[in-house]
This record gives sequence, C-alpha cells and structure tokens, in this order.
Amino acid sequence: MRLGEVCGKVWATKKLSALEGCRFALLKLLDDDAKLSQELLIAVDHIGSGVGDTVLVAQYGAARVALGENLPIDAAIIGIVDSIEMN
Amino acid sequence: MRLGEVCGKVWATKKLSALEGCRFALLKLLDDDAKLSQELLIAVDHIGSGVGDTVLVAQYGAARVALGENLPIDAAIIGIVDSIEMN
Amino acid sequence: MRLGEVCGKVWATKKLSALEGCRFALLKLLDDDAKLSQELLIAVDHIGSGVGDTVLVAQYGAARVALGENLPIDAAIIGIVDSIEMN
Amino acid sequence: MRLGEVCGKVWATKKLSALEGCRFALLKLLDDDAKLSQELLIAVDHIGSGVGDTVLVAQYGAARVALGENLPIDAAIIGIVDSIEMN
Amino acid sequence: MRLGEVCGKVWATKKLSALEGCRFALLKLLDDDAKLSQELLIAVDHIGSGVGDTVLVAQYGAARVALGENLPIDAAIIGIVDSIEMN
Repeated sequence: MRLGEVCGKVWATKKLSALEGCRFALLKLLDDDAKLSQELLIAVDHIGSGVGDTVLVAQYGAARVALGENLPIDAAIIGIVDSIEMN
Repeated sequence: MRLGEVCGKVWATKKLSALEGCRFALLKLLDDDAKLSQELLIAVDHIGSGVGDTVLVAQYGAARVALGENLPIDAAIIGIVDSIEMN
Repeated sequence: MRLGEVCGKVWATKKLSALEGCRFALLKLLDDDAKLSQELLIAVDHIGSGVGDTVLVAQYGAARVALGENLPIDAAIIGIVDSIEMN
Repeated sequence: MRLGEVCGKVWATKKLSALEGCRFALLKLLDDDAKLSQELLIAVDHIGSGVGDTVLVAQYGAARVALGENLPIDAAIIGIVDSIEMN
Repeated sequence: MRLGEVCGKVWATKKLSALEGCRFALLKLLDDDAKLSQELLIAVDHIGSGVGDTVLVAQYGAARVALGENLPIDAAIIGIVDSIEMN
C-alpha cells in the first residue's frame, strides 16, 4: 500500500453508472521521510477521510476487494493513519 | 485512478477482433497541481469525451470491469471531470 | 495501453513450454509528443508487426485476455497504429 | 518481488474491518547496489519482521495469494532475507 | 515482459511455506540500448539461469500463470535470452 495525504476532491457528473455514489478523493502520495511527492492519485473513499488526513491506499485489484468487485476502480482508501513510526 | 487530459485519438485498423468498435483516446496524465506530465496513455472511451476534457482513468483489471471482461485493455475512461477541488 | 515502436526481436530457446511459438517483439515506449522513451518492453506479437511500426500494447492481465489465459505473459501487441491525432 | 528494509510501522485505527489484526510495516525499497531508494511502501507482515530487517515483498495480487484472498491489500512481506549475493 | 540480467541470488530462510524450494534470482532490469538500469527485481527461477544470463521476466499475475497459481510471487523468469536484435 502507499501513504497519501488527502488534498481535495474530484467531481464527475458524467461517469459509468456503477460509480454512482462514489466519493473520489484527490491524494498526493508520500515518498521517503513522508514528504509529499508529485504523484496525484484518485482513490474512492467509503471511510470518510477529510482534507489533511494521511491515509492508506490500496491499488490494483485490492481496491475492488476493498469496496466491491463490480466497481471499475483501481485505488481505494482502506484506512486513516493515526501515527507513523519511522526509525 | 489517474487524472488525464484528452489530447487526441489513435487509429489502428489492424487490431485484435475483440477491439472492433473501440475508441482509443490519447491522454496526458496529470501530476501535482494538475500540470500535464510527460506520460502518454491510451484509454478506451465509451463515455464520449472530447479533446480538452479532463477525465478519470481506471487502469489494470479495473478497465475490464468497466467496459467488458473480454476486452484486452488495461485502461478505460470511467468519468469526465466537472471540477477539481485542491486544498 | 501504451504506444510503442517496434525496434527488434528477442530470441529465447530455453523457455517455459507454454511460450513455444511466441514471437517476442522488442519495443521502445513513447512518451509525450511521441518521442521514444528509455523504457524497453518485450511484448508477444500475434498480429505481425514489423520493425518501425507503432503499436498499441496492453499490459498486465489484459495481455492474457488478448492472447490466451494460459500464457505466462504480461504484455501483448493488440493493434498496429495507422495514425495518431494529437491536439 | 522487491527488496525492502523495514524502517517502521503505521497505525490506522479507522480502517476497513477486513484489516483488523493486520500489522502494517513501513518499508523503504532497495535499488541498485542495495541502496535505499526514496520509495515508501506499506506491506502487511504476518511473518514477524523487525526494524532493520531486509525483506522480500510481493505486490499486486500476489499479496492476497500470500495472506488471504479477502484482504484488501496490494503488498505483503513474504520472507526475511538472510543474505544477498551480488556479482 | 522486461529484460533483466541475473546478478546474484537472495536467501530467505524465514518465509511463507508456499515458497519452500523457490530459487530467488536477483536481477537488474535493462533499459534502452540494453544498459543496466538501477532497478533491482527478485524473480523466481525454475529454468536454471546463471549469473550473467539475460532473461525474460514476467511480472504481476503472469508470474503465477508461469510457475503455479498458489505461489505468492509477482515476478518469474520465463526464458533465457539467446540474442537480441535491435534496429
């Protein structure tokens, strides 16, 4: 999984019908030393994260295991991070 | 998912028969601050996006969940973006 | 999918038996403005592309949807590109 | 698979229920000559690695083959490395 | 698939039981003009490659199609390269 920081949302009125009701969070992924990278990722959020939250993101097939096999998605927020211990 | 901007189309007359009727959109993916990156991606579009549209792209197995399990594709446009809120 | 330019072939006599008869095309992937990138990819070609052709490449599970679920491959040429329209 | 060095842990109280009991190891992936890269990856660890261990990490669907098909994860520690022989 | 050069081995005594008997080859992937890149990849080898061999590597689900669906692996050596023709 990757660590990301929620930095916004994306709205798409015209979308596949299977995506009705999905909330698309805009994330910046974290690199070494928890700095924000240049990578933008959109992940579906059913947990209720907010802007500024650090989240765990599962990608690829894991996103559908997380939120539903019929969802045409490749990234999902699977947890909101309380703390990171880095040695 | 990734954000991309539709910047053209690709035509391939000689292709696998399962791909007949597919429309191949040419996308530039968006990086941090919604700048266009150097990455080119071809995604199948059944939604009807046009040049200049910002779109949501699902990759990997999600592309087939989106548009059909028998399609030999790894990227599909799943939504046309109305607005991006970035904090 | 990605765009690639066929720049050669790869021969492997000692290989898994499921791969007998596969033709391994050597590709350079195309980045922004259709410049050749530094990325080398090997894709199985059942379409009959030649050196210098620009091709559509499907990766990950899509390669097996394209050419056979029993093939241990992660990239396949799915079309030969006639023209690219970039705005 | 990739080589990673365990450099910490991540805690997430609010997470999908399927993830209860999972231990999230924070890894830096190793590049050429076994130098630590800038890439941070979070992998579920059921083996019992500790900070400073070099580990083998399986990604994508392999993570669920390793630890359970119902887990919404895309990375798992599959072994603790004893030694690396590089010529 | 990617081209890699076998540059060593990795030993892991403590590992998932499904991996008993697997031989973990240490590879450097090849970039443009067949130069060695900085990317290190560990692939399971059931073919019998040796240090210095150039090999074809299949990643993602293709690794399990190659060597066994119950193996928690994401990379496998599927062939030993005899020659590369690059135009």
